[in-house]
Amino acid sequence: MKIDLRSDTFTKPTPGMLDAIARAEVGDDVFGEDPSVNELESRMASLFGMEAALFCPTGTMSNQVAIKVHTRPGDEVICEQQAHVYIYEGGGIAFHSGSQVKALAGNRGRITADQVVSAINPDDVHKARTSLVCLENTSNRGGGSCYNWDDILAVKQVCQINGLALHLDGARLFNALVATGQTARQYGQTFDSISVCFNKGMGCPIGSVLIGNRDFIRQARRVRKVFGGGMRQAGFMAAAAIYALDHHIDRLAEDHQHAREIAALLATKEFIGTILPVETNLVIFEVKGRYTAATLVDTLKHYDIHSLAISPTQIRMVTHLDITRAMTDRLLQVLNEL
Amino acid sequence: MKIDLRSDTFTKPTPGMLDAIARAEVGDDVFGEDPSVNELESRMASLFGMEAALFCPTGTMSNQVAIKVHTRPGDEVICEQQAHVYIYEGGGIAFHSGSQVKALAGNRGRITADQVVSAINPDDVHKARTSLVCLENTSNRGGGSCYNWDDILAVKQVCQINGLALHLDGARLFNALVATGQTARQYGQTFDSISVCFNKGMGCPIGSVLIGNRDFIRQARRVRKVFGGGMRQAGFMAAAAIYALDHHIDRLAEDHQHAREIAALLATKEFIGTILPVETNLVIFEVKGRYTAATLVDTLKHYDIHSLAISPTQIRMVTHLDITRAMTDRLLQVLNEL
Amino acid sequence: MKIDLRSDTFTKPTPGMLDAIARAEVGDDVFGEDPSVNELESRMASLFGMEAALFCPTGTMSNQVAIKVHTRPGDEVICEQQAHVYIYEGGGIAFHSGSQVKALAGNRGRITADQVVSAINPDDVHKARTSLVCLENTSNRGGGSCYNWDDILAVKQVCQINGLALHLDGARLFNALVATGQTARQYGQTFDSISVCFNKGMGCPIGSVLIGNRDFIRQARRVRKVFGGGMRQAGFMAAAAIYALDHHIDRLAEDHQHAREIAALLATKEFIGTILPVETNLVIFEVKGRYTAATLVDTLKHYDIHSLAISPTQIRMVTHLDITRAMTDRLLQVLNEL
Amino acid sequence: MKIDLRSDTFTKPTPGMLDAIARAEVGDDVFGEDPSVNELESRMASLFGMEAALFCPTGTMSNQVAIKVHTRPGDEVICEQQAHVYIYEGGGIAFHSGSQVKALAGNRGRITADQVVSAINPDDVHKARTSLVCLENTSNRGGGSCYNWDDILAVKQVCQINGLALHLDGARLFNALVATGQTARQYGQTFDSISVCFNKGMGCPIGSVLIGNRDFIRQARRVRKVFGGGMRQAGFMAAAAIYALDHHIDRLAEDHQHAREIAALLATKEFIGTILPVETNLVIFEVKGRYTAATLVDTLKHYDIHSLAISPTQIRMVTHLDITRAMTDRLLQVLNEL
Repeated sequence: MKIDLRSDTFTKPTPGMLDAIARAEVGDDVFGEDPSVNELESRMASLFGMEAALFCPTGTMSNQVAIKVHTRPGDEVICEQQAHVYIYEGGGIAFHSGSQVKALAGNRGRITADQVVSAINPDDVHKARTSLVCLENTSNRGGGSCYNWDDILAVKQVCQINGLALHLDGARLFNALVATGQTARQYGQTFDSISVCFNKGMGCPIGSVLIGNRDFIRQARRVRKVFGGGMRQAGFMAAAAIYALDHHIDRLAEDHQHAREIAALLATKEFIGTILPVETNLVIFEVKGRYTAATLVDTLKHYDIHSLAISPTQIRMVTHLDITRAMTDRLLQVLNEL
Repeated sequence: MKIDLRSDTFTKPTPGMLDAIARAEVGDDVFGEDPSVNELESRMASLFGMEAALFCPTGTMSNQVAIKVHTRPGDEVICEQQAHVYIYEGGGIAFHSGSQVKALAGNRGRITADQVVSAINPDDVHKARTSLVCLENTSNRGGGSCYNWDDILAVKQVCQINGLALHLDGARLFNALVATGQTARQYGQTFDSISVCFNKGMGCPIGSVLIGNRDFIRQARRVRKVFGGGMRQAGFMAAAAIYALDHHIDRLAEDHQHAREIAALLATKEFIGTILPVETNLVIFEVKGRYTAATLVDTLKHYDIHSLAISPTQIRMVTHLDITRAMTDRLLQVLNEL
Repeated sequence: MKIDLRSDTFTKPTPGMLDAIARAEVGDDVFGEDPSVNELESRMASLFGMEAALFCPTGTMSNQVAIKVHTRPGDEVICEQQAHVYIYEGGGIAFHSGSQVKALAGNRGRITADQVVSAINPDDVHKARTSLVCLENTSNRGGGSCYNWDDILAVKQVCQINGLALHLDGARLFNALVATGQTARQYGQTFDSISVCFNKGMGCPIGSVLIGNRDFIRQARRVRKVFGGGMRQAGFMAAAAIYALDHHIDRLAEDHQHAREIAALLATKEFIGTILPVETNLVIFEVKGRYTAATLVDTLKHYDIHSLAISPTQIRMVTHLDITRAMTDRLLQVLNEL
Repeated sequence: MKIDLRSDTFTKPTPGMLDAIARAEVGDDVFGEDPSVNELESRMASLFGMEAALFCPTGTMSNQVAIKVHTRPGDEVICEQQAHVYIYEGGGIAFHSGSQVKALAGNRGRITADQVVSAINPDDVHKARTSLVCLENTSNRGGGSCYNWDDILAVKQVCQINGLALHLDGARLFNALVATGQTARQYGQTFDSISVCFNKGMGCPIGSVLIGNRDFIRQARRVRKVFGGGMRQAGFMAAAAIYALDHHIDRLAEDHQHAREIAALLATKEFIGTILPVETNLVIFEVKGRYTAATLVDTLKHYDIHSLAISPTQIRMVTHLDITRAMTDRLLQVLNEL
């Protein structure tokens, strides 16, 4: 029994999802004629109470397209220092948007309104023009941490006062909604743009959706084309995403339950150091004593259990659609015996 | 019977291809673990006798990634003035690569070695640095025209003497191979990089493959990631492309036959002006007399026949996998009666 | 007697200008405290009847800063195929602005409203967004040709109807004004931005001024800073430009007279082919028969007469502040004897 | 007596320097024919024991041109979080080079080899490619702090091992040389490129010199042109710089002495908090108690003493060529009486 906890990007379609793919009605989406893509975009806009949406091949493209639309070269983008858009997207903010990052040291990936206020540049020719704030919820490097709603509202207020756009990297936003009881509409009313990934906890092979108002999405569609994201019969992948909307949201609670159990057991082991609080489906922990991150990853590999060393002393385990109750039990058993 | 000749991007998977999609073995391609993607990349490299290949969501991305790897900002790219990379990719050469285009007036989309020689800038700080030549074969705006092999070799020689890279936009390269009898290996030995689209005549829903040497593809993989083209379980789409390699190449000859028949009939009608010579699956013709491009397109629409006005006086019809013998006959009949 | 006709960029300050430099009042212009720069900017704005102006180290910077402010990456700029901004500024439009050029074949460097209309892209995600038209007056590669005022107004009308900005590369605009009797105010009322070079016919060592409305110049000031054009005690160079405004405009008529005489003599020589009509201070002519451009340039060099081969068969001679009546006579004599 | 301590960019040429400007031999530097520019570039290369040098209008341009040559879009540049290249050059690293910054928290603007090692990204498509380290010496925001030579060598070693280029922003490098006794040649042997500003302590109106090996400067010359930094008779400004090399280096010791005296007096005042250690010509101090930065700046302005509030609680005073012994005494007296 292979247990792959390296990432929730490893999920494979369920039989139901595969069936949805095979039956998908498709067309040429560059001409706006793919009914499945149109349905997905319309459902996502409606779910978030926003005007429009755009299907993209990856979450990186959704984020980078959004940042491109919100900025001009020479701008400055505020985000947390471990934000995915800054450290895991190939330097895309500078590459595509010619904009620099002011990276703030947050609390498990989350930044506060006060930090944002202090980071805004004055209007001065020496300084890059601050134009955008990016939040990430849940935070990947923050161990799946979720924002309190009031903290988001406070950041939003700062953005409004200072004329900044506010983008959400919601790669794992459904995890946050399930964990906190917040609603998609709350997010849609607060952010100028939201990217949601269907490839992670949602279990789809490919795809991300970017949501915003009509004019923003019109511009984003143009940028997606120049990025090479204007796929033709994308409806096969959109159909998988529609299936995930219907079947894979509520079940994220199971992944969170599994993650909590893993963390609880890890907390009892003397070779485990700090474990980031588990709020959703990520478990990030320090390794100490007789193991390094690398040797513990190797040890587990002998049991066909796969995890990711994200630093010399840190391991990440991710629960997801393809980690069953039985796999979690097996993992707990193996960890217990180490 | 809907007959859609607007583009070969409208093709939908055949039952056999759908079956290949449904059965595809997949994995996380960002981790290099998608067996179908790996197989497709390996087959394409091998078919062209090159070292490596990279699966991309679209032909635009394949082309733009290649151009990015071959150039530095401030460079100049030589191509025909109607090249897809210049006029249909959203200004991508400037957008992504900060490079300007020297656009040459070719013969139905094809340029000559002499033209390239004259277009190369001297080494002078006032001048952009010429670094790349892009050919397109078949040429879309050239009406599906094919290069003579000797003309390509002559351009190659100019590139070698002048230290220029040579990229092929081979969106419809398989059409050219079938029409001319040239081989993929000839191309692989001559170009520094080749993009081939699976979405057009090959009948796949999504996907393009970029081919080159190992170091080029390593750099291209990095650029693809920052473009947001690093899809995860892309193997579903790669499986469709593998199916197309096995089943959809030879049959392109039928599309060419259909296109020739259409052109032959058009040549008999007094409201049709110049028809670009038909070498593959594109028929581009002028409309005159009692029709404009727009009114003829509308007239045909009443017969559920769909074509594209590409200028006020020009129409494009494209034959492809979903244009059957019966559809071609119906089109010929309707045209005849007009 | 060295006679340097290679370019009007070779002029050196007159004693009067040198004196103005030495006496200049200066301050830190980045803080807006250089009185000479402030005076120059204010005089230029006033001369053209526009709101504001900005002193830049070079004409290339003035042009490229203007283009940056007028465009966003992915835009398309319309200009003549030999425009200085396109062929002599290092590929700057793509490099700085991520915008591509649609280069039109004009009449001695000048394009018409009809050409501009045809070149505007439709609103289509495949196409770069047309946003800017650049004219050049006088045209360098057009041999110092001047626009008719009506032709400029017609282009302006096209820009207004289509929402395009209109920039003038006025590197040698004062030559055009002197030659045609048009006024600076006419230009100020018509263009969205104008760059004027003080380094060429005006005889200054360094400097160019960009003129526009207040908001445009505010943005241009920011872009100038990031380009590294925010000089400190720039007033020394601004003082030279002020001196040139007072003393070097009307005398351009002499340069034009000299140029006409040179062309008239050249027209009598059997080894000279086509001479571009001389409207201002540039003489561009073809060499044939017993000379190539290179050998004629060399031959003249023996007489300490310096000219520029701008192609294998073309030579450019430029008259300017440092080409006196006596030098012109000497040149005529030498040419006559060849 | 106006005492302007806001910046050493406010210096005006001395009579001797003005005389050197007026007598300068000049030519067209774009054609390589300006003898004063050639002499300055040659002297600077020789002083640092490097192969070549390039005169630029500003320090921002020198730095940004160097960074452009050293990087490709998608790269990552390591520097201190308050580095001038990152916070005071308009976001130029992203704007021009499409590269992102990893900003390290240093000790008064200086970073260590250990910090650099930790900041280097692994070779991973998710990560920007680390390619360049920028040091700043003296550090502006570090209060004119100087690097220990051993610390620079340690950073150099890290760069060599990891294939990173090493650039020095030496805007005030001569201050560091005078203060520490280090030599220009040491720097020339260690850095891949060095920018030195002539506008600050050196007392020139305009200009900066970038130094490197021949191939680097050849590329930089091309980039300078596209930036619009290719000035024509730049020799007037180069002559000022040559004068400064001969007359203004040793005297920097006086500025440092003045700065130390100012700091010593400030240390006795109860409304002054932390004063950054004074190593060269910058005095940065906190204001507390009855003053804010703004009110103390205002109070001093009544005595015609001008200083700069660089944050709500911090003031910067800069000593320089135009701050005489008498002015320093007057300042000390006024401060004493507050």
